[in-house]
Amino acid sequence: MEVYGDLQSGNCFKVKLLLSLLKVEHDWIHVNILNGESRTERFLSRFPNGKIPAVELDDGRFLCESNAILGYFAEDSALLPKDTYYRAKVYEWLFFEQYSHEPYIAVARFIQKYLGMPEERKEEYASLKKGGHQALQLMDNQLANTHYLVGETLTIADISLYAYTHVAEEGGFDLTGYPHIQRWCHQIQSMDGYLGMS
Amino acid sequence: MEVYGDLQSGNCFKVKLLLSLLKVEHDWIHVNILNGESRTERFLSRFPNGKIPAVELDDGRFLCESNAILGYFAEDSALLPKDTYYRAKVYEWLFFEQYSHEPYIAVARFIQKYLGMPEERKEEYASLKKGGHQALQLMDNQLANTHYLVGETLTIADISLYAYTHVAEEGGFDLTGYPHIQRWCHQIQSMDGYLGMS
Ligand SMILES: N[C@@H](CCC(=O)N[C@@H](CS)C(=O)NCC(=O)O)C(=O)O
Ligand SMILES: N[C@@H](CCC(=O)N[C@@H](CS)C(=O)NCC(=O)O)C(=O)O
Repeated sequence: MEVYGDLQSGNCFKVKLLLSLLKVEHDWIHVNILNGESRTERFLSRFPNGKIPAVELDDGRFLCESNAILGYFAEDSALLPKDTYYRAKVYEWLFFEQYSHEPYIAVARFIQKYLGMPEERKEEYASLKKGGHQALQLMDNQLANTHYLVGETLTIADISLYAYTHVAEEGGFDLTGYPHIQRWCHQIQSMDGYLGMS
Repeated sequence: MEVYGDLQSGNCFKVKLLLSLLKVEHDWIHVNILNGESRTERFLSRFPNGKIPAVELDDGRFLCESNAILGYFAEDSALLPKDTYYRAKVYEWLFFEQYSHEPYIAVARFIQKYLGMPEERKEEYASLKKGGHQALQLMDNQLANTHYLVGETLTIADISLYAYTHVAEEGGFDLTGYPHIQRWCHQIQSMDGYLGMS
């Protein structure tokens, strides 16, 4: 199995972290999106959306979308509940991540860390702060009530949201106001099979 | 069961359409987000994200995120495959919808249809066109190869993407260049239990 990604990207890192926790063997193929490697004819013929992470399974079939990939590998593991309601709660957090968390926190990090905060994106950067803090507050409130986002055990909801949350400070989000998120990050970091972001 | 929503919103309509196709009885509670009905203390205590659609199940438990709600109700129906790979392909489209389709097509429609294209949002509106057309082209290419987005039968991937696609023209997206999308819309509209958007 081949996984295409860049470990600087939280969307890719979450897949790597899951595969490590589950001890799934794979070849990691580094893709540099900034020099067009995800827009070659060969890449687009496999992954028409032109985005990483992306997976080629051993039988030659393809998968993309980070959170769909997490669901695929977590199926039949404790990281994705069998119960229909709890399973839906996991997906609730995964859709929240893509719609209400990543577009603020990952984009702010990209502008600050990778683009070095160019003048013409400062206004956009400032506008991302509110949505990002709302997402972090929502998570912190949940983590004040339960050890993990969906109940008392780790699920792929935690793995997905951990990816950009634990480096939110690189996008200018101070995590000291979110004590439950901090506790949760430490719990995840102490797991067997944990690996860091690059 | 109570479903909170507004049928003008594609995110809410997709839930209504699924419940209609599956013939699931429910009370539909209209929520007007423009006058703050999704930001009351009562609403936020149940649905901390303050967004519709949102569901209160008969046992008093809560669910939100349109696509997670679709997954919940489609479980154990033909609309969500059992096979792990095809299930992941369905979720791939659902995440694509929230990340690469809705933020362009739904937002353009909102600016054109509901805000009446105010001067200060014209630049943003223009910038949404490229991403929206990319999403439509990707769908059209898939629908040139298969009857539905994931193979030969209807799944919740189709229901989700149909919601904002079939009214994309209200956001200024001309669908005449996407013949396979048009064929697919007609197929969905001719289904037993189909209902329109308001
Ligand atoms: N919704 C997608 C987002 C993936 C995404 O945006 N990937 C970025 C890197 S973090 C990318 O490949 N960008 C290149 C491009 O869009 O051209 C997912 O969760 O996998
Ligand atoms: N990712 C959410 C998005 C829901 C959403 O943005 N709902 C809008 C109406 S279409 C809303 O409630 N907006 C009110 C607000 O955010 O205050 C979903 O798929 O359910």
